[in-house]
Amino acid sequence: MTATLLTVGDELLIGQVVNTNAAWIGEQLATHGLQAVRSVVVGDDLAGVADEVRRALRTTDVVVVTGGLGPTHDDVTKQAVAEALGVKLRFHEYILDDIRAKFEKRGRTMAAANRVQAEVPEGFEPLTNAVGTAPGLWFAGPWEGVAGERVIVLLPGVPYEMQTLMRDIVLPRLVELQGEAAVVQKTLHTAGIGESDLAEKLGDLTGWLSDRIKLAFLPSYGVVRLRLTAFGDTRAEALGRLGEFEAYVRDILGDLVFGEGDETLASVLGAMLVERGLTLATAESCTGGRLADAITDVPGSSVYFSGGVVVYGNPTKEALLEVGADALRAHGAVSEPVARQMAEGVRQRLGASIGVSATGIAGPGGGTRDKPVGTVWLGYADEAGSHTVRLQLPGDRQLNKRLSVTAALNLVRRQLLQRDELVGA
Amino acid sequence: MTATLLTVGDELLIGQVVNTNAAWIGEQLATHGLQAVRSVVVGDDLAGVADEVRRALRTTDVVVVTGGLGPTHDDVTKQAVAEALGVKLRFHEYILDDIRAKFEKRGRTMAAANRVQAEVPEGFEPLTNAVGTAPGLWFAGPWEGVAGERVIVLLPGVPYEMQTLMRDIVLPRLVELQGEAAVVQKTLHTAGIGESDLAEKLGDLTGWLSDRIKLAFLPSYGVVRLRLTAFGDTRAEALGRLGEFEAYVRDILGDLVFGEGDETLASVLGAMLVERGLTLATAESCTGGRLADAITDVPGSSVYFSGGVVVYGNPTKEALLEVGADALRAHGAVSEPVARQMAEGVRQRLGASIGVSATGIAGPGGGTRDKPVGTVWLGYADEAGSHTVRLQLPGDRQLNKRLSVTAALNLVRRQLLQRDELVGA
Repeated sequence: MTATLLTVGDELLIGQVVNTNAAWIGEQLATHGLQAVRSVVVGDDLAGVADEVRRALRTTDVVVVTGGLGPTHDDVTKQAVAEALGVKLRFHEYILDDIRAKFEKRGRTMAAANRVQAEVPEGFEPLTNAVGTAPGLWFAGPWEGVAGERVIVLLPGVPYEMQTLMRDIVLPRLVELQGEAAVVQKTLHTAGIGESDLAEKLGDLTGWLSDRIKLAFLPSYGVVRLRLTAFGDTRAEALGRLGEFEAYVRDILGDLVFGEGDETLASVLGAMLVERGLTLATAESCTGGRLADAITDVPGSSVYFSGGVVVYGNPTKEALLEVGADALRAHGAVSEPVARQMAEGVRQRLGASIGVSATGIAGPGGGTRDKPVGTVWLGYADEAGSHTVRLQLPGDRQLNKRLSVTAALNLVRRQLLQRDELVGA
Repeated sequence: MTATLLTVGDELLIGQVVNTNAAWIGEQLATHGLQAVRSVVVGDDLAGVADEVRRALRTTDVVVVTGGLGPTHDDVTKQAVAEALGVKLRFHEYILDDIRAKFEKRGRTMAAANRVQAEVPEGFEPLTNAVGTAPGLWFAGPWEGVAGERVIVLLPGVPYEMQTLMRDIVLPRLVELQGEAAVVQKTLHTAGIGESDLAEKLGDLTGWLSDRIKLAFLPSYGVVRLRLTAFGDTRAEALGRLGEFEAYVRDILGDLVFGEGDETLASVLGAMLVERGLTLATAESCTGGRLADAITDVPGSSVYFSGGVVVYGNPTKEALLEVGADALRAHGAVSEPVARQMAEGVRQRLGASIGVSATGIAGPGGGTRDKPVGTVWLGYADEAGSHTVRLQLPGDRQLNKRLSVTAALNLVRRQLLQRDELVGA
């Protein structure tokens, strides 16, 4: 079954609120085997909403509308839907009694304006809102001679109320209508390789890709996620197909794939450190604290993260890390020897198993001919020795910081994998 | 002028990515006097995108399309737009040369797949992407006999690249096309006060607000932005009205307002430190590097930012900051004495004029009855003494980190203002 998501509210169009409702609903539908094919935001405008509802009914099986069910004059959703279906709004005393009881339970008096929340378009069934006042509304039936049934769901825009109604009532009903779910997805995360190189490495996939197997590339700050989608007449068939394709992709990409699903580079690295009983310390110049920030975004990171230093300016590098004044003078702060000494210095200073460092020119100023903006040296040090990497990044300050953090986390991950190989050999 | 926002990508429909691009563009258009009337997300599907482009051209003056400009097979935007306009894609060698040069500058070889990024629909002008490979594309002209000009803008989906192209090229052009702006806006930023307290403080604004003056509250991680909008028959009239309202609001709020427009708390604080010839050092526990990260996001911050330490775990606090083992034992790491000693310690250690510290329980674990998740102590130290603040934050790990950073930056700002008063007195 296909679906249109329709989100109603001026505040979304002017960017005052980000449309997290549509993302949440889209994810839930996909997880339950339904496919959202279009997501539309319109303002609080009667004709505009009615127009989108009609268009959605013409082109998709299900329409999920959120927002515009409140008691104020700019809440137009029910009226618009009634207009689109050519039905009337009917007032139901029992719904108003229910809303009034909810207010009283919270020790508040219901405002007269709430009366409109007890109006329901003909043919719709009210869905009890366990956590708010406005009921959800459900319609399933034929529409203007389009083939098959149409489902229309109206939900409040308050995320918590919308989610509760979806989870408790709407999704179970949709799954029942849909029958056996037949779309499955998996996302693999890669680091250290760009989108186009990745595509080239995967080679000609025409033997794989079809209307039953799809692959999408989702790049973001040095990480490229691969989304694999498989379709089947049954869930088991779709899962089998997905498993085969995933095995093929993983076989080609090897450890360029660092994780899947909700995992991040920092969370995967954290798990690797815990597994090996190692600790990590950071010494940052150009990343300015963002590397430590990414590491400490992972709950429980205090187990393996010893801490870090942010060294801006040479005196701080000397004072905190005992980076040699000679190296600073001879090679400059953005250089291989300084990156190496920073990683070694912070490792020793904080008594960590591993030190990682980043020193570079984030921009916009500070570039020279030999070391243009985007020049970054990363350092890695453990008990066996040290290793450095030079990057030449394309971005401005923000982007260069983010790309450096991804590269530094990936450097430590790859060094850990190499240690494993040495131990295994 | 009215606009349709069209965002292309399967990942948005299945909720893997939240559509922050549309929110950002909607806000920018509103700020520049254009009105987004519909925001649509469609998947990576040629016919679907072409269909939406045609619909947008029929109903609005401007279409801003983001996403689907990459080099892989699922990037269909240019083809779809060409189809909607009934034109061909043409390959331009000079664009490919430009893309190749960008790869080479980063020391990488361009993949063969990137060739398609040099294809342009006839009638479109490439817009140089200063921070990525895929150029933006611009069309302005008549379309299938609809009255007036139509503008089509194609932008990459990578937020940073999209934003840079919008800011540097697209918005200035749209403003010029729009003609004499009769809508003017200004955004004032406040910190240290919540949305509802702010509304209460501003009192009854019915004398001010009308269809010619509007006020919106935009809260975000401890900062509430006030967007003032004024309308007029001429730009001068609108500006006059805006000026009067701004003076009224500033008079009531005083130094709760820390900046305006593109300024951030970190950039305002940076300017204050430069003006006073002071330097700053950070000592972070619960914020894990994010405070230093925010400070170093400001270009030129190396002038006043001495550096920082991220101290996770008590041994690091003792080793790097000489925080007393007694204080740690007696009061715990999340306590007033430790916050104070951290601020004093980092100030001394890095030879900075001012030290600022944050120690707390970001969550999800680590809370106790006396110190639940969200308990944070901030410390401030300068040559005259020290000052601490206790926060009780409501969020999860991410939110608590962000709120702590805002509060810490604002603490330093307010202390600097107090110093000024003392000097003035």
